[in-house]
Amino acid sequence: MTISETESATGDGQLVETVRRLVERVDRLESTLEVRNLQHQYGYYLDKCLYEEVADLFAENSQVLFMGGIYRGKAGVRRLYCERFRRGFTDGRNGPMPGFLLDHMQAQDVVHVEDGGERARARFRTFMQAGTHRSVPKEERRAHFDQWWEGGLYENVYVREGGIWKIEKLDYRPFWHATFEDGWANTPDYFQKLVASKTYPEDEFGPDELLDPPHKLWPVTDVLPFHYPHPVTGKPWGE
Amino acid sequence: MTISETESATGDGQLVETVRRLVERVDRLESTLEVRNLQHQYGYYLDKCLYEEVADLFAENSQVLFMGGIYRGKAGVRRLYCERFRRGFTDGRNGPMPGFLLDHMQAQDVVHVEDGGERARARFRTFMQAGTHRSVPKEERRAHFDQWWEGGLYENVYVREGGIWKIEKLDYRPFWHATFEDGWANTPDYFQKLVASKTYPEDEFGPDELLDPPHKLWPVTDVLPFHYPHPVTGKPWGE
Amino acid sequence: MTISETESATGDGQLVETVRRLVERVDRLESTLEVRNLQHQYGYYLDKCLYEEVADLFAENSQVLFMGGIYRGKAGVRRLYCERFRRGFTDGRNGPMPGFLLDHMQAQDVVHVEDGGERARARFRTFMQAGTHRSVPKEERRAHFDQWWEGGLYENVYVREGGIWKIEKLDYRPFWHATFEDGWANTPDYFQKLVASKTYPEDEFGPDELLDPPHKLWPVTDVLPFHYPHPVTGKPWGE
Repeated sequence: MTISETESATGDGQLVETVRRLVERVDRLESTLEVRNLQHQYGYYLDKCLYEEVADLFAENSQVLFMGGIYRGKAGVRRLYCERFRRGFTDGRNGPMPGFLLDHMQAQDVVHVEDGGERARARFRTFMQAGTHRSVPKEERRAHFDQWWEGGLYENVYVREGGIWKIEKLDYRPFWHATFEDGWANTPDYFQKLVASKTYPEDEFGPDELLDPPHKLWPVTDVLPFHYPHPVTGKPWGE
Repeated sequence: MTISETESATGDGQLVETVRRLVERVDRLESTLEVRNLQHQYGYYLDKCLYEEVADLFAENSQVLFMGGIYRGKAGVRRLYCERFRRGFTDGRNGPMPGFLLDHMQAQDVVHVEDGGERARARFRTFMQAGTHRSVPKEERRAHFDQWWEGGLYENVYVREGGIWKIEKLDYRPFWHATFEDGWANTPDYFQKLVASKTYPEDEFGPDELLDPPHKLWPVTDVLPFHYPHPVTGKPWGE
Repeated sequence: MTISETESATGDGQLVETVRRLVERVDRLESTLEVRNLQHQYGYYLDKCLYEEVADLFAENSQVLFMGGIYRGKAGVRRLYCERFRRGFTDGRNGPMPGFLLDHMQAQDVVHVEDGGERARARFRTFMQAGTHRSVPKEERRAHFDQWWEGGLYENVYVREGGIWKIEKLDYRPFWHATFEDGWANTPDYFQKLVASKTYPEDEFGPDELLDPPHKLWPVTDVLPFHYPHPVTGKPWGE
């Protein structure tokens, strides 16, 4: 198919056209891998509570959807990562606390660069291990549960500005939580209570807007819509 | 190596040849990423019991190897996903049941596009979390265990038809199962009993053929043969 | 950006230059995917205690950093995999033992090919399931714990020799261990005791050199330095 394109590319005009198409295709391949790297790097920074580094991955005009709220713009992004999480998890510092685990494995990317090459959409999965080691005194433990598993999905948008890929929209949908001891067959109601119900500034660390409808968590099993059509039939999701 | 190719590509014939090779190489890179996407999309659809969408990923002339049986052609593929799994897991519907978890993480791809560019082989790993939330009444729970982990491997073949990559052969080898409570040190015999022993139509949802020898499950640790030679020595697997 | 390069590539000299750049870019893309494959293949061989196959992935002039020690050259690599691990895990054989699980999932690659195209650096994550099935008699069990989880990071270097990518430096940092029963909130001191304290030949299977400072394990949460600068700000890690 594409090979026959070149086989006929002996005329000068056709050669130039083939090369022009190749430049576009190679640019798209490079972008695909850069978007993967960007999301993988997001996960590695988040592991280590490097919230400044996380916030710097976002475009100026960006948003984060997290637990029922929308955090808008760099101010919203920083309120979530550099204020809410830092206050909640690391006692105000940028970097990991001894004895506090927050591993955010990133996996199963499906990246599509849009026509024009300056915007991309991607689905990712995360699989988390989190908790506090018993060597941390009880009164210093910041998480409600001592140790838990978490599985979730992202449907993100990325934008290339000045040649650099950045996160434009991070839409994280935690799907299931499970304490290490009791598992996903016994997920308590607690996690549902973390879904946002107040906005900023009423909630000092709250989102700019509430999601409507809000995130529903496991045992609800609704499908997070796919940004892509079916790869074989071409049918868009939801039609 | 390849750079010196172009350095001498100043003659017109050499330039055309370099461009022709580039088109082939870019096509192969694009195919590699499309095959990854295809398998990752398979995993996301399977998470949500979207069995119609799963079956549509397969070529007309395809097969699935699953738990000791070979399901042949689209009819066999549909018997497995759209009849057996749908009847077993989702009470006949296409889509997720509330309170039933079946996460199929896909990871660790090793994709090789064959010469000619229209067929590819790939090894993948899956890591699963499955089970039923306690809010589902006991009499409605469809799985034998309330919650379990599963690790497995794929050695799949993909084919490009009309420019679209599809699954030609899905060879899934579950390697280990573990209940959430007792782990892989205590895997019960139960899972081995799920290996197929009857074919269709004697078993309404059975495979067209039995694998001989059948799949052996953990604690058997046999190597699932690699489709690729050793990447440094070039030695094919098994020689 | 790159597209405008080609749009002006109608002059013959510019066309040749565009093609020369394309060859470099395609070579880098191919190398990126080959390095991923190489590390993923490392993981699949390690799953199955195929230590000969693992050792063959390394360059002649290579090193492995493992649990506080540096194993140097092919002799050191073989001492670790083909002597220490084979003696410790598989009773001297090359290949898996029945009832002994050692799954090494590889995930979350961030690969950067260096200028010149013959060396690459990559960060990977591993997530492990390991242990011995209860069907193995107690006196034949080789691991201290019956079943455990392990999470860790790699910061590796790869080199291309004679057109073939090989591992030049494997720097594995196990981050956390957890028994299946008690989890990462209750990781015992035991794992810290596995950090090397003697070198070869005093320790028959020991490293050539001790890491100074040695690896610290969970509940220590130090950041494993990133080989890459921040992808948006360009700021190198640690500055």
